Amino acid sequence: MQLDKPYSTWRRAVKILIANLGSTSFKYRLFDLDGAGAALLAEGGFERATDYAPCIESMLDSLQRGGHLAAREEIEAVGFKTVLGKNLSGCVEGDDRVLEALNGFEEVAPAHNPAYAEGIRCFRDALPQARRVALFETAFHQWVDPVAREYAVPRSWRDIGIRRYGFHGASHKYVAERTAELLSHEALADRTRRLYVDGPGQWTGSSLRIISCHLGGSSSVAGIKNGIAMGISMGFSPQSGLPQNNRVGDLDAMAVPYACKALGLTLEEAERELSTRGGLLGLSEVSNDLRDIRKAAARGNSRAQFALDFLVDSIRHWAGSFFFKMGGADAICFTGGIGENGPDIRAKVCAGLENFGLSIDAGRNAALPSGGEGFISTEDSTFKALVIPANEELVVAREVYRKLIRDKGAKAHRDKGGNGDN
Amino acid sequence: MQLDKPYSTWRRAVKILIANLGSTSFKYRLFDLDGAGAALLAEGGFERATDYAPCIESMLDSLQRGGHLAAREEIEAVGFKTVLGKNLSGCVEGDDRVLEALNGFEEVAPAHNPAYAEGIRCFRDALPQARRVALFETAFHQWVDPVAREYAVPRSWRDIGIRRYGFHGASHKYVAERTAELLSHEALADRTRRLYVDGPGQWTGSSLRIISCHLGGSSSVAGIKNGIAMGISMGFSPQSGLPQNNRVGDLDAMAVPYACKALGLTLEEAERELSTRGGLLGLSEVSNDLRDIRKAAARGNSRAQFALDFLVDSIRHWAGSFFFKMGGADAICFTGGIGENGPDIRAKVCAGLENFGLSIDAGRNAALPSGGEGFISTEDSTFKALVIPANEELVVAREVYRKLIRDKGAKAHRDKGGNGDN
Repeated sequence: MQLDKPYSTWRRAVKILIANLGSTSFKYRLFDLDGAGAALLAEGGFERATDYAPCIESMLDSLQRGGHLAAREEIEAVGFKTVLGKNLSGCVEGDDRVLEALNGFEEVAPAHNPAYAEGIRCFRDALPQARRVALFETAFHQWVDPVAREYAVPRSWRDIGIRRYGFHGASHKYVAERTAELLSHEALADRTRRLYVDGPGQWTGSSLRIISCHLGGSSSVAGIKNGIAMGISMGFSPQSGLPQNNRVGDLDAMAVPYACKALGLTLEEAERELSTRGGLLGLSEVSNDLRDIRKAAARGNSRAQFALDFLVDSIRHWAGSFFFKMGGADAICFTGGIGENGPDIRAKVCAGLENFGLSIDAGRNAALPSGGEGFISTEDSTFKALVIPANEELVVAREVYRKLIRDKGAKAHRDKGGNGDN
Repeated sequence: MQLDKPYSTWRRAVKILIANLGSTSFKYRLFDLDGAGAALLAEGGFERATDYAPCIESMLDSLQRGGHLAAREEIEAVGFKTVLGKNLSGCVEGDDRVLEALNGFEEVAPAHNPAYAEGIRCFRDALPQARRVALFETAFHQWVDPVAREYAVPRSWRDIGIRRYGFHGASHKYVAERTAELLSHEALADRTRRLYVDGPGQWTGSSLRIISCHLGGSSSVAGIKNGIAMGISMGFSPQSGLPQNNRVGDLDAMAVPYACKALGLTLEEAERELSTRGGLLGLSEVSNDLRDIRKAAARGNSRAQFALDFLVDSIRHWAGSFFFKMGGADAICFTGGIGENGPDIRAKVCAGLENFGLSIDAGRNAALPSGGEGFISTEDSTFKALVIPANEELVVAREVYRKLIRDKGAKAHRDKGGNGDN
């Protein structure tokens, strides 16, 4: 995979660590990148982790013992898949400005922003020599049509940053890249990979319209036209769109004041309930984990079955919106824990779409192993269905690498007397 | 039009008044109905009306002077297109139970419920001999799939009635009836007209999938399959879905607590802002009236143009969802003030749908007069586009008539010694 034009000033491989931080989990992947490609050296993680500092120490020990690092100083940069920054997006230095931006929208992304802010601080202490780089999950959605960016709120609400942002950018970008590769749109795959470097520009090549379904603990559907996102189900907060594990998904905003009054909740309590007791948990009254819900449904629990049906209907709602706006679609893709391991969900999402050229191949769909990649539509479907295992960390690692390269180039340019603006 | 099986016990024509009550308007239509059809005798209204009692007196004078009523006592019933009742829907006696149901959801429909409650009280005083009958706007949506009825909220939120209700039921039902007639689905048209009498039952006749766009001061899009609503853009409150005149439309629920904190608003203030300063007004910063917005856009006001584009995008979002879920559509219909008088909006909603069999006939679309009915798609479109002037009052009048008939039949049965349960 061609990542970037190799810089003559800097050819050696770079070790980049990607930290994936949840409020109770810590996962990592260590990559080795050069101008020609990326190699995954190691991955691991900790569940039920409430303090990142010991996790980081344990990870560094393990990476050294495993022979992936001679010394911790070999890690040149740590990349963070940060979610939502106030007045900040893109791929940026993980400095105080990022901490401030995360803090500014802390209540909007309570499951994500405090975790990433804490993680960045812990890595600053543990690996002071390494660069810290944040790739915001909103970055992929920066080129949507302006109407897909706003709500019909009073101006004062817009002025404080209430708009549609969109998340899961790294995952949807990877799906866009990989789908273009699998459907032999090579030039488009390259355009998509280089999107954050080259920007969207004009596209006169072959057309590819994708509906990307990232389904996991956190879920969203994106519409992607020629490698550029044209819409996504998640809006202002990562609580919106599809029902999440325990976060509410789309809800009439007027329900919040009504519930506060009728249930005697404070605003903070209402906010917390929608962020921790809604979603698949609220629907099923069983669990926030789809695996448990599926088991309960199989045992005849009707609320659990309802939660599964509701999730499918919500996916179809958003998929349908993008399908219609794009005048059709060439592919619908499934990724994430549920997307990769849910042949039942995939089949239901794609049911009744034969008029649109999509028929699921039941055998292929059922036979695809966990973590497997491939087509699940019939050979003669003109609207394809695919499973693409999530690879968000690779997208982050590549962008971090590109940023290091750019910054080195800028520095070399400055050292030679340029102004550093390249 | 066949309304119902004529009852042998009661054949004479009945005068029914339909009151359409806004927070600052009072409109009415007087119908004469019998078992064979309905005739509109008179219509009128008052704008900027804050007190209904003098409006009612003025209306009654005018109807008598116009020769439509010999005496006010000739009005046998007054029908109300009530919006949202707590624990109440369908076509019911406009008694204290209705007032209580409207009151129970007063904050959810602040522009509608207090107005209807007040109107019912005023008519009780002014026309004590007349029956008062309420047809809730939620009635048409009672048969949607259960997943289209809920949100992924915690159970305690569901238990206080936070779910998707759907509104504009009378308008969408009329569109469903009339589209079936215009597309020569006679049996389906009859089924749709008799829906509240016979219920949905099984349907084995020809299939008809409609996307109904009611666009006016208040707007919504419904998906209708074989005469039965399968989904609608408005959910818990009439503030949701498309951007309304000054009401917000769909908004991430988490924006409410965020705005309260960031702008120092109380919950009541936030509620009021979203119900009076959002929607097309909030988007355009010009007006809550699309006619003004259109003029401003023509003069080059970019926010006004943005509001128009946003409205079109929102319509396409919901239309697309229903289109996809129904596996395609046979017709998209426009009704309401904007739908009937907005060839530009209609053309933009239908742009780029040639792949789906729909091409707008620009001549037909432009030539259709205000209040005109007809097709605006090309002759060879397999997915038709139509304009159908709104006729919600007729739907309400018919249901009121049917209720009078049923109640008379029940009384006759009781008088003959039956139990009245028919």
